Amino acid sequence: MKAEIITIGDEILLGQIVDTNSAWLGQQLFDLQIHVQQITSITDSESHILQALTAAQSRADVIICTGGLGPTKDDVTKATVAKFFNTTFVHNEEVMVHVKQIFERFNRTMPAMNYGQADVLANAEVLFNDWGTAPGMWVEHEGKVFIFLPGVPFEMKNLMTHRVIPKLKNFYSEEKLVLRYILTVGIGESHLAEMIADIEDSFPDQVHLAYLPKIGMVRLRLTVSGKDVEQLNLLADELQEQLIERIGKAVVSTEDISFEEVLIKSFVADNCALATAESCTGGNIARVITEVAGASEMFEGGIVSYSNQVKVSQLGVSESTLEAFGAVSEETAVEMAKGAKERLGTSYAVATTGIAGPGGGSQEKPVGTVWIAVAGKQEVQTKLFRFHGDRQINIERATAQALLMLWNLYRQEKGD
Amino acid sequence: MKAEIITIGDEILLGQIVDTNSAWLGQQLFDLQIHVQQITSITDSESHILQALTAAQSRADVIICTGGLGPTKDDVTKATVAKFFNTTFVHNEEVMVHVKQIFERFNRTMPAMNYGQADVLANAEVLFNDWGTAPGMWVEHEGKVFIFLPGVPFEMKNLMTHRVIPKLKNFYSEEKLVLRYILTVGIGESHLAEMIADIEDSFPDQVHLAYLPKIGMVRLRLTVSGKDVEQLNLLADELQEQLIERIGKAVVSTEDISFEEVLIKSFVADNCALATAESCTGGNIARVITEVAGASEMFEGGIVSYSNQVKVSQLGVSESTLEAFGAVSEETAVEMAKGAKERLGTSYAVATTGIAGPGGGSQEKPVGTVWIAVAGKQEVQTKLFRFHGDRQINIERATAQALLMLWNLYRQEKGD
Repeated sequence: MKAEIITIGDEILLGQIVDTNSAWLGQQLFDLQIHVQQITSITDSESHILQALTAAQSRADVIICTGGLGPTKDDVTKATVAKFFNTTFVHNEEVMVHVKQIFERFNRTMPAMNYGQADVLANAEVLFNDWGTAPGMWVEHEGKVFIFLPGVPFEMKNLMTHRVIPKLKNFYSEEKLVLRYILTVGIGESHLAEMIADIEDSFPDQVHLAYLPKIGMVRLRLTVSGKDVEQLNLLADELQEQLIERIGKAVVSTEDISFEEVLIKSFVADNCALATAESCTGGNIARVITEVAGASEMFEGGIVSYSNQVKVSQLGVSESTLEAFGAVSEETAVEMAKGAKERLGTSYAVATTGIAGPGGGSQEKPVGTVWIAVAGKQEVQTKLFRFHGDRQINIERATAQALLMLWNLYRQEKGD
Repeated sequence: MKAEIITIGDEILLGQIVDTNSAWLGQQLFDLQIHVQQITSITDSESHILQALTAAQSRADVIICTGGLGPTKDDVTKATVAKFFNTTFVHNEEVMVHVKQIFERFNRTMPAMNYGQADVLANAEVLFNDWGTAPGMWVEHEGKVFIFLPGVPFEMKNLMTHRVIPKLKNFYSEEKLVLRYILTVGIGESHLAEMIADIEDSFPDQVHLAYLPKIGMVRLRLTVSGKDVEQLNLLADELQEQLIERIGKAVVSTEDISFEEVLIKSFVADNCALATAESCTGGNIARVITEVAGASEMFEGGIVSYSNQVKVSQLGVSESTLEAFGAVSEETAVEMAKGAKERLGTSYAVATTGIAGPGGGSQEKPVGTVWIAVAGKQEVQTKLFRFHGDRQINIERATAQALLMLWNLYRQEKGD
């Protein structure tokens, strides 16, 4: 099954927003065995819209259009889409009532332009939008499915999850899919591929293995397709088990959750608590931890000790250490981690100190030099990194490596 | 002048990565008065690549292709691109030496697949890549310009900035462009548009005004095009001055920099220092501040006080306050801000405490309830917010509002 995504409107083309919707849609559709073949972002000119819809229809089975139908948009878009289907727009009173209620809820008068929100394509099934004002639409046309969704990510995702995906599953019902995940850390993608090459080679045609790499980790996604779900589950379990056995300790989780979620769940289950002491990562480690719902069950808090003074006053780093070795040193990192662990009363702490750039580097300690220390129940481990990215990339890499070091120490102390 | 962007490869279509490159390219090209008309992401099948290149050539003057030419990619891509131009690949020894040096620098043996990096299109001018291994290429073909760049954002951006943009400027030299920026805070996009409607209506055709909104702020970008740069500058200055006068105090900056950069520069210039005390934002305020190079000149550090215990021990929030009013309360926010300011010895501090969700809400304090306090040289200001997004959006909004409150107090105390 093939899909294409079309985004209409200037925001993406002008670079005013980054298109995060398409990647998310790509993942969701893949899990339904619907493969996105093309993503097209276009301006809202009539000829361009007609051209894109026609081309997508000729290649794909499912066409998802996001954006371009909100209240402030040019009428061109709506009129053009209606023209493409050789249909018109009709007023939907249920949508109108809903839009009015939303404005009432926020005690705001509804600008007149919002009346148009209730105009839906005459040939569409309305996908009711509980999360915003613009409704989604489902159109079946010449054997293809066209789905129109608002561009606001929060609304688009909820409409997909609650309205579109259940319908798509029904619509393409012959082929069933089951998925299995294996999250691995500490093995590079190509090394992992070598490690399991013979297993992968032995997979039957109905099985597909995808490698999804991130800094320091690779997620494997096993897709098994066929008719009989029970049989598919048996096969998927068996293959997953083979892979897990081969990969061994590097397997971190078999759930489709992030590494941070695995870390948090494990800490909670073992009653461990975490504190952070961040210099060069500037709060980013705390952020990625607290971005996960439920982090409060294991994360006590952290100190962003950007200045030396704060390293001393809030973490108890000794002034003589700073003088003798500098802020970017193994000694300072160790004292930061120990200080955070002690002062925040946790079983684990992680500390970073380095030069994120672009300024502040020296010959001895160039930009990208980062010391990371993790303090556990029994010991403190340290590591020196030399990253080669720009400021943002260096911060991201240091954050990822800090969490990996934390994980490794935790596993080691647990005796795994 | 019209441009299209083509990204080749499965990573974006499968949703394994978000395409941040295209938005950045869209901005850069816009500043050269080159308007991106379409962004196309495709798989690396021969027919798909040929179709996309042909279609783009028929519509655009400049076609930028990113990704698809790295060492691990299928040879299909390279062969197809050569076929499209009816050319072949030639070995470039300068590139080869450079690639070898990069591996030597990291003390790593060069995998054989990297020899292919030195194979460049025979009809291309090589855009030397000082930031990675894969070279960029510039091809002039049937009156159009094709630019091939690696997909790694860091490499792509450097190649664009240092190799491509200077060449594009020369290539399309008839029309000159001058740009002016006005960053405003605290006025909504539509309100701002009303405020300056008559000025905007009076603009001559050669002037374009773009509204670039973010949470709590709108950036105006004024583009003036024509032949005589001196005259264009005079006109741009005059129009910018008119707008600034009308908008008044909401104008924050006339430079093309982020709001965080404006805040940091202003604090540095006035010798002010900042501390953060974060509960629900979990380190995100510290992160957005420290993401800016030079933040260390005004940011002392912060406390992420996720647990009540840390609010007490590290910020001096009183236990009786927590008991009487709860962690999510005006009283706690005030004590957090005061505590951070005092303990970290700064002139300003900002504090957040709230319920980011999805759990933790109650009827009285639903998910999205956030108290923010800012402490300045003379006073403390507080504000209650009720956000309606998911966890991530609530954190982002709270972060943006906290910085806006900080800015307003700073300006007020400065007597602006």
